[in-house]
Amino acid sequence: MQIIERVLEMQRWSESERRQGRRIALVPTMGALHEGHLSLVRDGKVRGDRVVVSLFVNPAQFAPQEDFASYPRDFERDRELLNDTGTDVLFHPAVEEIYPEGFETRIEFGELSKPLCGAVRPGHFSGVATVVATLFNIVRPHVAIFGCKDYQQLQIIRRLVRDLNFDIEVIGHPTVREGDGLAMSSRNAYLNPEERKAALCLYRSLRHAEEMVRRGEWCGAAIVDAVRGEIAREPLARVEYATLCDPESLREVERVEETALLALAVRIGKARLIDNIILKP
Amino acid sequence: MQIIERVLEMQRWSESERRQGRRIALVPTMGALHEGHLSLVRDGKVRGDRVVVSLFVNPAQFAPQEDFASYPRDFERDRELLNDTGTDVLFHPAVEEIYPEGFETRIEFGELSKPLCGAVRPGHFSGVATVVATLFNIVRPHVAIFGCKDYQQLQIIRRLVRDLNFDIEVIGHPTVREGDGLAMSSRNAYLNPEERKAALCLYRSLRHAEEMVRRGEWCGAAIVDAVRGEIAREPLARVEYATLCDPESLREVERVEETALLALAVRIGKARLIDNIILKP
Repeated sequence: MQIIERVLEMQRWSESERRQGRRIALVPTMGALHEGHLSLVRDGKVRGDRVVVSLFVNPAQFAPQEDFASYPRDFERDRELLNDTGTDVLFHPAVEEIYPEGFETRIEFGELSKPLCGAVRPGHFSGVATVVATLFNIVRPHVAIFGCKDYQQLQIIRRLVRDLNFDIEVIGHPTVREGDGLAMSSRNAYLNPEERKAALCLYRSLRHAEEMVRRGEWCGAAIVDAVRGEIAREPLARVEYATLCDPESLREVERVEETALLALAVRIGKARLIDNIILKP
Repeated sequence: MQIIERVLEMQRWSESERRQGRRIALVPTMGALHEGHLSLVRDGKVRGDRVVVSLFVNPAQFAPQEDFASYPRDFERDRELLNDTGTDVLFHPAVEEIYPEGFETRIEFGELSKPLCGAVRPGHFSGVATVVATLFNIVRPHVAIFGCKDYQQLQIIRRLVRDLNFDIEVIGHPTVREGDGLAMSSRNAYLNPEERKAALCLYRSLRHAEEMVRRGEWCGAAIVDAVRGEIAREPLARVEYATLCDPESLREVERVEETALLALAVRIGKARLIDNIILKP
């Protein structure tokens, strides 16, 4: 596995691979890798001839009071995991390499960035989209793979690619879960054993909603109430949002008609956890 | 000359040219072509193996009260001129091709977009940068050529390319002028004969400033006052701004030290004309 730290070197590598007709898959990460990330890398190996994993904890997508400084970092471990998973290039730029002096471009969105996490994390998706656009131009992948756990992020990246005509296929990879159902996340590391148990309420409530829909429930309010009730039974958990919305536009919906996205953000201790499920009647 | 109207077809053409190792030059225009544009095309022919000219009157860069509807359009004439100048591809998309339903991405800037035209045309440079970014992804040029008359636009495109790491060389082509010095502009068509004469005050005042600097003047206030005075002698002209600033950051400067940009916007009749000059002591 090659490690590349400079933008120009990465661009040259990609240009050369493309000239040789090879298909490049990109998996953007912030490190602190878990099985969810590795599963994206394996998917990349199937979809591309070469897999590039970027590892960059992007300051622009953290608000000042958020966890940029304390975000888990373990480069040696990440490097080994990626090497063992068959990554071809680990792109690992310094902050100054991505944001040199005088940097002032940012990509903004309209409606898609307003609900869900966008409502509580102002500037977050602008930070995500800006860094992803620059990663796209640096790595020049044919296909880029993102996890479905960050569903709103995935929709925003899809919008970015469609609107700005990046010639890139965006893949949403299904959320990878622990044996007991907890969605894998680097932020699960913030949980102590007791909180780790409490965190199961996210998955439990999503499955409960799925079961309600299977039994014929279509009313958004009833489903969301039940989800909130389920999470309320867990004293360590505090719901930030629980919303039923259209999976494309992310606009809130009142009923499960064709498909609906049920999206959750829950605070447990120091961790802010998100999860979601697509409901189909 | 090939005319391409669809994004996918344009992308395929470019991908195929790139695979054959050909260098693509892009000249983005809004049509209503004049010798200034054609001079960019000729420059493109020197710098690239293939020249693509885009012709797209971009609604997103006009404010509601501006001249989008009345902006001069003459496709047949433009097509002939481009054909005669040796253009390889004329990319001429419909508005819905560039802004399909649901489009909501926009690129914004910080300090660079605030002074000069940015102060009087809110949203203008965001509209320019967003369409240029999408044109870059559609045409995938190696080099893109812009006129120096639109100096702030050129600086913003340079910033966009640097910040988002587009692998594109940006060329600023010197302003092309009429025999009497008036900077060529599609908006000169708005001038009646009397206004056309009055419009000479822009160039005259810039040359006057240049002469002052040659004689040893370095004080920004003295230079700007003289420029305003020169334009004030022309009753049909109204200065929108006359500013001395740093050619890189566009921040206002108080004196001509190494180099300074003197930038002008002047209203004459229905036309809003801009021009600029780089001053060196």
